[in-house]
Amino acid sequence: MEKAWTKTEAGALAELKRTELKETLGMTGAEISLNRLGVGQAIPFIHRHRENEEVYLVLSGTGEFWLDGEIIPVREGSCLKVSPSVGRSLRASADSALTYACVQAAANSLKAYTRTDGVLLEEKTGW
Amino acid sequence: MEKAWTKTEAGALAELKRTELKETLGMTGAEISLNRLGVGQAIPFIHRHRENEEVYLVLSGTGEFWLDGEIIPVREGSCLKVSPSVGRSLRASADSALTYACVQAAANSLKAYTRTDGVLLEEKTGW
Repeated sequence: MEKAWTKTEAGALAELKRTELKETLGMTGAEISLNRLGVGQAIPFIHRHRENEEVYLVLSGTGEFWLDGEIIPVREGSCLKVSPSVGRSLRASADSALTYACVQAAANSLKAYTRTDGVLLEEKTGW
Repeated sequence: MEKAWTKTEAGALAELKRTELKETLGMTGAEISLNRLGVGQAIPFIHRHRENEEVYLVLSGTGEFWLDGEIIPVREGSCLKVSPSVGRSLRASADSALTYACVQAAANSLKAYTRTDGVLLEEKTGW
């Protein structure tokens, strides 16, 4: 049976190592990776996806995405949705490392969310 | 037609305001919220979900989750998967704010991911 909750520790975000969470946490709705590119480092390939939409959350630093040939600058707090068919790559700036989370989930799979999927409980925490 | 990529800026993570990304970015596979609890601040209710699994990524600070009555300490880098039926709440520590991302996606919706959903392209970025 699926465990109701699971936890892992990725450590300090400034010192991230590539961490893939789906198998570690037993996730069934998304894959999330935590990533760090060193100063000036680039992903050495372009990829797209078959079914999955990706959302990138930039956690620190600055860099650039390459999206179907278009260059998009990013910095801490940039949130970028990329549809499956888009060819994508990214790099850290020449003077900055770049840490980011990448969330992939099947396009068009989310039905309800937040107020329409969440249920408030009567129970109290005691806090 | 769905835009192939979209971007928004959430700003410096230490000064996050509650930001819900799904509608802003036109996401179709997940909802992601960015959140900040001030020093000692608690979510004032317990909730569960109907269909969606949640994954919490702690971006800074320390705090505690309440999961079906169990107390789970978290800190920067803690990654926590919570199945839909689990009652959940959280608070920042008495001496720390807490910033975090919450990803919700439909449980059991992810079929393939990363190496099985990704496709490498021949094209080069020129970097």
